Amino acid sequence: MSFHAPSFRATVLTLFPEMFPGPLGLSLAGRALEQGIWSLEARDIRASATDRHRTVDDHPAGGGAGMVLKPDVLAAAIDAAPSEGPRLLMSPRGEPLTQGLVRELAAGPGCLIVCGRFEGVDERVIEKRGLREVSIGDYVLSGGEPAALVLLDAIVRLLPGVMGKQASGEEESFEGGLLEHPHYTKPNSWEGVEIPGILLSGDHKAIARWKQERREALTRERRPDLWQRHKTGKI
Amino acid sequence: MSFHAPSFRATVLTLFPEMFPGPLGLSLAGRALEQGIWSLEARDIRASATDRHRTVDDHPAGGGAGMVLKPDVLAAAIDAAPSEGPRLLMSPRGEPLTQGLVRELAAGPGCLIVCGRFEGVDERVIEKRGLREVSIGDYVLSGGEPAALVLLDAIVRLLPGVMGKQASGEEESFEGGLLEHPHYTKPNSWEGVEIPGILLSGDHKAIARWKQERREALTRERRPDLWQRHKTGKI
Repeated sequence: MSFHAPSFRATVLTLFPEMFPGPLGLSLAGRALEQGIWSLEARDIRASATDRHRTVDDHPAGGGAGMVLKPDVLAAAIDAAPSEGPRLLMSPRGEPLTQGLVRELAAGPGCLIVCGRFEGVDERVIEKRGLREVSIGDYVLSGGEPAALVLLDAIVRLLPGVMGKQASGEEESFEGGLLEHPHYTKPNSWEGVEIPGILLSGDHKAIARWKQERREALTRERRPDLWQRHKTGKI
Repeated sequence: MSFHAPSFRATVLTLFPEMFPGPLGLSLAGRALEQGIWSLEARDIRASATDRHRTVDDHPAGGGAGMVLKPDVLAAAIDAAPSEGPRLLMSPRGEPLTQGLVRELAAGPGCLIVCGRFEGVDERVIEKRGLREVSIGDYVLSGGEPAALVLLDAIVRLLPGVMGKQASGEEESFEGGLLEHPHYTKPNSWEGVEIPGILLSGDHKAIARWKQERREALTRERRPDLWQRHKTGKI
């Protein structure tokens, strides 16, 4: 139990508030939630519908499959929500989420995350309410909710007091623009394969060099795009 | 209720089986789960631990922060799981998830998804059990579980009988290597902004042209990387 205000306040606008906290109620994020390090409020967009059928969507102008979230209903939901930090819309059209953007958001007071369902969200709301479109990757989801869970998980682990050892966050993939080196643990011999001898040598300099070499080799081999950015310093 | 075998069988290995089905138990994926279109079994890796403390992890060889999942325990969990389709490991070091890979997986009989926690997974298990490392994006999560939820959500919506109109899947972002055009719905005028006149014209050819132009312009502007691939036909 903490008597401080949470350091990060997340508000999610969704048609499925019962999807939250979901996995974020357990493990690392769940403990931080209990400790009051962050707060999470999932608000039902449908509560802002004004007609007696509680309509939230309508057919897309110009035809086509799917339904579009109505601008008036979504804007009302946004206007009624607490305004802490940036307003984000999870969308495959958005700027790709990077660890840099995660760090930027984690350093702020919180965020409002709009989750679309159906075909999408009326473009005018995005413009008029200044929604920043964020994409977690180049694939299509049934809605923004799984993406919001991912974004919040990435943010929460960076909040002060959440990770046991800060170092664990710093050594990981992308923190230096490189993929992680391979990991090994006991037993030293398993199914006939030994842990690389250098890791058991106790020679800390040689171990650090080995890790760095493996990180570089893996990045070069698997992700030429990241390697290029690493080399040119554009991380 | 369906009396057919599910068309897709997902098995997840995790230290937090209670995170599943989570958001996948609701909405589109949840209905498909109830209808038996797919099945989901979350298995606790800890059940494969053999010592009396049920130890699943140990310190990384060569030192460093975090803990590493033990090869013997994880391999035992994998060996005990049903073997339907490929074995995946959610990992930021993996090949980036694309809509193409989602389609490939959705066309198969199912998959086994290993979720790591802590620092990572012993490299020898990845090699010896042929785990295919998949990354949902260039950011770091507290574990593989939110990534597994995202991957399964993307897969399930493509299974036969899940989406109301197949067209909805085809028109969307990435299906043609382009981002989606803007969407609009009623009211025609909202906060002083009109829906683009062309969308209300009833001229289907002109509307189709407008949509295609907007998709191309958005992709060029926001995602030069996708645009390059689109132009060269490498989707």
